[in-house]
Amino acid sequence: MEALEALRTRRSTRAYRPDPVDTDLIETVLEAGRHAPTGGNSRTNHFFVIRDQEILQKLNTMARKAFAAMEVNENTYRSLRNSILASKNGNYVFTYNAPVLIVVANQKGYGNNIADAACALENMMIAANDLDLGSCWINQLKWLNEDPEILAYLETLGLKENERVYGSLALGYPLSADSLPERKPLPETGNEVTWL
Amino acid sequence: MEALEALRTRRSTRAYRPDPVDTDLIETVLEAGRHAPTGGNSRTNHFFVIRDQEILQKLNTMARKAFAAMEVNENTYRSLRNSILASKNGNYVFTYNAPVLIVVANQKGYGNNIADAACALENMMIAANDLDLGSCWINQLKWLNEDPEILAYLETLGLKENERVYGSLALGYPLSADSLPERKPLPETGNEVTWL
Repeated sequence: MEALEALRTRRSTRAYRPDPVDTDLIETVLEAGRHAPTGGNSRTNHFFVIRDQEILQKLNTMARKAFAAMEVNENTYRSLRNSILASKNGNYVFTYNAPVLIVVANQKGYGNNIADAACALENMMIAANDLDLGSCWINQLKWLNEDPEILAYLETLGLKENERVYGSLALGYPLSADSLPERKPLPETGNEVTWL
Repeated sequence: MEALEALRTRRSTRAYRPDPVDTDLIETVLEAGRHAPTGGNSRTNHFFVIRDQEILQKLNTMARKAFAAMEVNENTYRSLRNSILASKNGNYVFTYNAPVLIVVANQKGYGNNIADAACALENMMIAANDLDLGSCWINQLKWLNEDPEILAYLETLGLKENERVYGSLALGYPLSADSLPERKPLPETGNEVTWL
């Protein structure tokens, strides 16, 4: 796919086929993420490629437990509110049942941690689109990145003591033609531009 | 350019020709930025496309003044340290003299402000690469995003009361073949991957 087309047609996929994704495709997606710029070329992103369904299930169970223990109020960010309410109902799967979750961690005290993780995630979304894979930014493990139970579990998977999660990517084949991203034209509102 | 190639070959350009960039090229870059995902589709990025050299000069002067008033210590982030020391020497131009600076602001109290700005900036860097333009992430106005003088000046340019700068992009034609990004292979170290 041509680069500008890949940038323009990327959309979030929120329903996936359970089929695994070939390792060479995941490697291509990862390569794009690892080529993203980092502050002062620090290159401290740490990518966890989770294909093990047992690990994904454990993370979903722990996230559900953590969200179910939270309360919402009128100031709760809408997406977080949805996670909390769905978890209290017991039916919440934050990974959209994608067969692959790429978790991006970075160093806790580093001022560019969120930005560096975001650039890598954006590159991976563009690469996934180019490869006709669906993807979706996942924020839940970032919101829960100080949850003691999840933190301890991620440490058993290789997270270092000074690392925290700053974003994740659901990745896989879209469930059906209908679950393919709707590639609607860009809305006219929002993302304002001021020319000077 | 093919999407994966554009992702793999993007590099930071730190020396620019003074030539202006055609508006249609800037619009293509912006379109890529405006297509980046945003948390809950909030679309609250605000892009300032600064082509007016007088504005760029004022911003550079104000940034130099702000940095020159700061002190460094052993914990100062390397890039910030460079900005402070160069500003004390009086010769600091944080925009690398690029003819265009695209500043990305977002809402101050919004939890995804940095991530949304970063995704938009990354998309713009990929689009610039595809168009054979040079670009470079610029962090200085983010570091100074509570500086009263710069904040007041940005407000005269259209920054809203609840908006702050979370990143910027230098954009233009590379100064010479030598200043073209060095497209070295990805280093083997850093940006670690853990397969699970």
